Amino acid sequence: MLVNSRQLRIEWGQCDPFGIVYYPRYFEIFDACTTALFERGLSLTKFQFTAKYDVLGYAMVETRARFLKPTRYGDDVTIETTVTQFHRSSFDVSHRLFKDGALAVEGFETRVWVGRDPADPKGIRAKPIPAEVVERLS
Amino acid sequence: MLVNSRQLRIEWGQCDPFGIVYYPRYFEIFDACTTALFERGLSLTKFQFTAKYDVLGYAMVETRARFLKPTRYGDDVTIETTVTQFHRSSFDVSHRLFKDGALAVEGFETRVWVGRDPADPKGIRAKPIPAEVVERLS
Amino acid sequence: MLVNSRQLRIEWGQCDPFGIVYYPRYFEIFDACTTALFERGLSLTKFQFTAKYDVLGYAMVETRARFLKPTRYGDDVTIETTVTQFHRSSFDVSHRLFKDGALAVEGFETRVWVGRDPADPKGIRAKPIPAEVVERLS
Amino acid sequence: MLVNSRQLRIEWGQCDPFGIVYYPRYFEIFDACTTALFERGLSLTKFQFTAKYDVLGYAMVETRARFLKPTRYGDDVTIETTVTQFHRSSFDVSHRLFKDGALAVEGFETRVWVGRDPADPKGIRAKPIPAEVVERLS
Repeated sequence: MLVNSRQLRIEWGQCDPFGIVYYPRYFEIFDACTTALFERGLSLTKFQFTAKYDVLGYAMVETRARFLKPTRYGDDVTIETTVTQFHRSSFDVSHRLFKDGALAVEGFETRVWVGRDPADPKGIRAKPIPAEVVERLS
Repeated sequence: MLVNSRQLRIEWGQCDPFGIVYYPRYFEIFDACTTALFERGLSLTKFQFTAKYDVLGYAMVETRARFLKPTRYGDDVTIETTVTQFHRSSFDVSHRLFKDGALAVEGFETRVWVGRDPADPKGIRAKPIPAEVVERLS
Repeated sequence: MLVNSRQLRIEWGQCDPFGIVYYPRYFEIFDACTTALFERGLSLTKFQFTAKYDVLGYAMVETRARFLKPTRYGDDVTIETTVTQFHRSSFDVSHRLFKDGALAVEGFETRVWVGRDPADPKGIRAKPIPAEVVERLS
Repeated sequence: MLVNSRQLRIEWGQCDPFGIVYYPRYFEIFDACTTALFERGLSLTKFQFTAKYDVLGYAMVETRARFLKPTRYGDDVTIETTVTQFHRSSFDVSHRLFKDGALAVEGFETRVWVGRDPADPKGIRAKPIPAEVVERLS
């Protein structure tokens, strides 16, 4: 599978009174990493590829994270993101965030490829993931 | 003008490594307070009143805040919000956040009442504020 | 176990371009709900009870959430939070978020009760959970 | 004065149901830009330079932003940040965020250089800005 690696400096505003990253911020970071993986694989921004494939995006079904080591503002971290499995309209993502070479946080996601529901313009529904998307991220 | 008052307990997750509220969180709080004012004045949720008046909401044009005293997690604060002036399609909002009776933060906003642009379905454009809205918040 | 129930109106600023809650916001909501449970059980704010027990708080070890139904701004939701198990220095928390009586999001947490590390003033270490805390939340 | 320029791709998670950046996120972006300016000028991370100068950081006194053009996820923006004036213990910062070469958002800040209050270990107080800091950012 395609693995995308990003480098990031932890910001003051992502940290809590402990002085370390407030954990919901890791989910924001991971969400941006999933998008960065797709943007790299598809060579389009999310705005562009959702238009191209006529979808709204990938809704979250279930997510989980394990926090092994704290990170604090000024730390430079690396996040490696990959799709671990594609299903018909859902897929699994893994994120591994490293600090000084050591695994600090692990994240897991199951997402669904979704579009407008033709039967309900306000609703969303699962759609099959295009073969081209699967191929480009594999 | 109608003044809406809200009580709020400051959360750990809103605070930074100083142990005090990270200032962008005040803008989130004030945004929710503007909505609470409209929801109270119109007796509808924002989802409902934007549907009723066929608008998208009120976009921010300019905002400002002064930070007089810090607040930290566990503090109970009171925020008083009011529209200070209505113009044709814009309006000014004032927020005053108190801690133990003392003014801690002041916020000011200028917003525009906006709807879909008929000429560009992806765009937004200013619309006149309905007389009923002005009346209910006055 | 003590169950704490909170009511909350979903805010515009918690929602993403889908118009539904951006999932990292649920982790912020759940974090505040864990604190609300402790604050109710101990009849003190988090600022007060961390001072009383000479700890920094409860660091997150692992968390997980399942998203069953979307919620959007204007929705009134109820969240029920309880500790499902106390260990020596860690504990498990469950959150159930309901919309119109239906389960919309489930959250799970494992946290550790932590204090300053006497051997390293910048570090944190696990501490046994006081019997009084266990009793009050049971 | 030293001007720091950053490039940033707007993320899905920074956008609201309009599909454009939720304005409190600009304050988060600007806060990180102020830090990036200092980190570049001082060749240290914020964690390092606050330790070196024995301060806690720079608390916000007043901030303001004007929103001229919306930006949405996938947009690549450039932010130029500079200190416009140094006073004894406070300073003014200007941010200009450009999209496709056009000014989209302007931000202004007045901050105070703060350290621990020797008379109150929980409190913070203004401290004179070191001459070296002024020089490096000029």
